[in-house]
Amino acid sequence: MTHTIAVLPGDGIGHEIVEQAQRVLSALGLDLTMEQAPVGGTAFDLHGHPLPEATLALAKRSSAILFGAVGDWKYDSLPREHRPEQAILGLRKNLGLFANLRPAILYPQLANASSLKPEVVSGLDILIIRELTGDIYFGKPRGVRVVEDGPFKGEQEGYDTMRYAESEVRRIARVGFEAAQKRNKKLCSVDKANVLETSQFWRDIMIDVAKDYPDVELSHMYIDNAAMQLVRAPKEFDVIVTGNIFGDILSDEAAMLTGSIGMLPSASLNASNQGLYEPSHGSAPDIAGKNVANPLATILSAAMLLRYSLNEAAAADRVENAVKAVLEQGLRTADIFEAGTTKVSTSQMGDAVLKAL
Amino acid sequence: MTHTIAVLPGDGIGHEIVEQAQRVLSALGLDLTMEQAPVGGTAFDLHGHPLPEATLALAKRSSAILFGAVGDWKYDSLPREHRPEQAILGLRKNLGLFANLRPAILYPQLANASSLKPEVVSGLDILIIRELTGDIYFGKPRGVRVVEDGPFKGEQEGYDTMRYAESEVRRIARVGFEAAQKRNKKLCSVDKANVLETSQFWRDIMIDVAKDYPDVELSHMYIDNAAMQLVRAPKEFDVIVTGNIFGDILSDEAAMLTGSIGMLPSASLNASNQGLYEPSHGSAPDIAGKNVANPLATILSAAMLLRYSLNEAAAADRVENAVKAVLEQGLRTADIFEAGTTKVSTSQMGDAVLKAL
Ligand SMILES: CC(C)[C@H](C(=O)O)[C@@H](O)C(=O)O
Ligand SMILES: CC(C)[C@H](C(=O)O)[C@@H](O)C(=O)O
Repeated sequence: MTHTIAVLPGDGIGHEIVEQAQRVLSALGLDLTMEQAPVGGTAFDLHGHPLPEATLALAKRSSAILFGAVGDWKYDSLPREHRPEQAILGLRKNLGLFANLRPAILYPQLANASSLKPEVVSGLDILIIRELTGDIYFGKPRGVRVVEDGPFKGEQEGYDTMRYAESEVRRIARVGFEAAQKRNKKLCSVDKANVLETSQFWRDIMIDVAKDYPDVELSHMYIDNAAMQLVRAPKEFDVIVTGNIFGDILSDEAAMLTGSIGMLPSASLNASNQGLYEPSHGSAPDIAGKNVANPLATILSAAMLLRYSLNEAAAADRVENAVKAVLEQGLRTADIFEAGTTKVSTSQMGDAVLKAL
Repeated sequence: MTHTIAVLPGDGIGHEIVEQAQRVLSALGLDLTMEQAPVGGTAFDLHGHPLPEATLALAKRSSAILFGAVGDWKYDSLPREHRPEQAILGLRKNLGLFANLRPAILYPQLANASSLKPEVVSGLDILIIRELTGDIYFGKPRGVRVVEDGPFKGEQEGYDTMRYAESEVRRIARVGFEAAQKRNKKLCSVDKANVLETSQFWRDIMIDVAKDYPDVELSHMYIDNAAMQLVRAPKEFDVIVTGNIFGDILSDEAAMLTGSIGMLPSASLNASNQGLYEPSHGSAPDIAGKNVANPLATILSAAMLLRYSLNEAAAADRVENAVKAVLEQGLRTADIFEAGTTKVSTSQMGDAVLKAL
């Protein structure tokens, strides 16, 4: 069976980095068709919408989406519904991509890149599982209204709704427990149950689902404490599961602990393992078109694509090992360069991974 | 005029650390009356409520509240309205303590305590201003309900309301701009305006209030990016202003960057500069009663009390300088001890500060 892969490079450095990941996917001898479509600001410029219908249709009929990055300062003044990031929210919602997997791994060769002391982060390998289609991201009602009573009566107020339905929590809980089973069997659920009703509801369901996974040790942590513990002793975590907004914050914080966000992939999956794969970093418009961006996070995202959506674990291993090999050879793009290593361009890094395959 | 100070030691190490701060306050020759009352789990045990009416009444008629810490594992199974942290939420709401000031300072003598590299954090001095009486902490409606339509129809869902009224944003904005004016004139407002209506509303008002403070440079940052930048380059911040839930997360993350949360005070002020002053750390029940806790965060909170609620800047300076002096003398409680320094107990640290005054 031929797999269709939707290739959505997006804005900024998106094209350059996705191109290298496509070269890698093409070199594996698998039966793949890649179809490209515009997304984000680029799509807005061409079609007046960051997620044109044809792009969404392509994404829907594909086995997986290889996504670059979206966003550029020049779209900042657009109304929210036309801004590039709406494309990614629209893809998540329309495809039901509820499970976001964000590994935070510090490659031993890059231990110095971190702003943390090497002993605190070297060998870091944690997995953050963020729920991606619920919570305050999509909850209704939301908007601006006039306050009807209380001390601010008559004023305007902005408001949003945080919410999780039972089955939404159950399904992300299962993703968390199953991931923990394949790793060190420790799952930490992060919430704010001392303040939020949504969190207490979330926590109760986590405890209930845990009964089906007696081999996994479930713990709970408040979000403020989790933000601290990630700085203090990140290696004490194995798998973290949390809601959409807390996961947005924690996954970025965890990524930055490594000091090499240019290395970190992500996967966003739905119930049928259709997925969107993208680097954890952004579109970096300041360096776009210069052939200096790090393509490895995107190449590693392609490896996740092989593993989760195409069920090609052996091919995924090959790609991940090739990335380790180029690091071992001392090749570095500018973002992770340090004295004693060899600085290479985006395309040279792609060449090296291809050669190492 | 005699100032009444409500002394609420709370649970865990609360009594030990507050006692040292009281000794310091008493030694300054000011006209103060200190009245003590139970709060938190201790109050629940005595009176069946974490914030008894008499305690709240005392707080209301005081110029300021010196607060220790609340919480203990043994109260974890109580229903939420009886848990110790409800006392602190109740005090904030009842006294209208909307402005939380949380300095994150790394004393040069303690640079090694951080999990970050010394060059990244040494000399760190940022101020986080967190709105404390609005947002999703108190927004209504909240609870658990049956979903009425959509894909989860018929299921239970937990939900909360995030909200900010215009005047709530304006007043915390002013606190932010005025604090920045007294420092390095850089204010970074943190929100999630790319997703949340409340945040877009917040941002628009920040921009409007900025017109009154042309000498302050206002910037905006998304919360996920702020969580990253604090890890990457915390010294690039001066003053951060943000809402209640984002501030909860960021202020704790920033505190942990220093590695010496036992040193960090906080102030929560209302419109008439009545304030609650407490250390940024918790009640640490595991070390309670052992005379090993670090009293310096509480002593520095007393200094903030002098400065903000009693308008006694000179006395505040004296206390802060005394704390610097004991650090300079090499005295350390267990939490900040390292080879080459002198380990002291809670009360010995108090003695040393008194002597240095
Ligand atoms: C661009 C933005 C809407 C998005 C989010 O908040 O989810 C991004 O920060 C992310 O984490 O993918
Ligand atoms: C105890 C809890 C309710 C509280 C909060 O979330 O505000 C605490 O974390 C704090 O920051 O003071």
